[in-house]
Amino acid sequence: MRLSERQAELFRGTNYAVVATVGSNGAPQTTIVWVDEEDGRPLFNTTNARAKGRNLHRNPQVSVLVWEGDNPYRYVEVEGDAELEDDEGGKNIHAISRKYTGRDFHTPVDRLIVRVTPTRIYDYDD
Amino acid sequence: MRLSERQAELFRGTNYAVVATVGSNGAPQTTIVWVDEEDGRPLFNTTNARAKGRNLHRNPQVSVLVWEGDNPYRYVEVEGDAELEDDEGGKNIHAISRKYTGRDFHTPVDRLIVRVTPTRIYDYDD
Repeated sequence: MRLSERQAELFRGTNYAVVATVGSNGAPQTTIVWVDEEDGRPLFNTTNARAKGRNLHRNPQVSVLVWEGDNPYRYVEVEGDAELEDDEGGKNIHAISRKYTGRDFHTPVDRLIVRVTPTRIYDYDD
Repeated sequence: MRLSERQAELFRGTNYAVVATVGSNGAPQTTIVWVDEEDGRPLFNTTNARAKGRNLHRNPQVSVLVWEGDNPYRYVEVEGDAELEDDEGGKNIHAISRKYTGRDFHTPVDRLIVRVTPTRIYDYDD
């Protein structure tokens, strides 16, 4: 399953998203992340040191929810499976940082690119 | 564990939150919700008909992430256990709706009040 063009636009824009992963105790964990889009899949960048990186190594089931700028009534939730790739040299986190801040990222070390293959997509537009 | 006064303020304000629950397949599920606060605990309102209501009946482990207005770099994530109560007559959803919209809720049926007892609180202020 892939994002529609309209959904993909939300991920390509400078919108914020919440990523939910599941911990070793079975409990959900959430954080706010920058996002991007590639070939109809949501993409985000984290580190191996953080809970969501550790969780995804163990359990690739993930939910990514992106909302439109200042309108949280328009949002898309993507449930799917995470595919992890080392972000060598921090090339990807620099690109995402430039999208959101106009600058390279401050500490591009031990970063992980996460691509999400959607299994369910919910599109809300209240 | 309870919210600090500063954290409680975020939940009492007209801020938006993402709730994450875990489905029967072990996968996380997220939606955007209105929130409130009661005795140092986050509170939200859902229905038995929705995925998060069904998930919480089966598994009370929940994460609620609230961010400040238009500043997603200031947010609080609360992980904890959900306590469910029938919202008889929709009294609670009407109160929350009035906080966010100034009006009663349009369909106050089959609603569920969810109070979250925090087990972990992460406070982000980048």
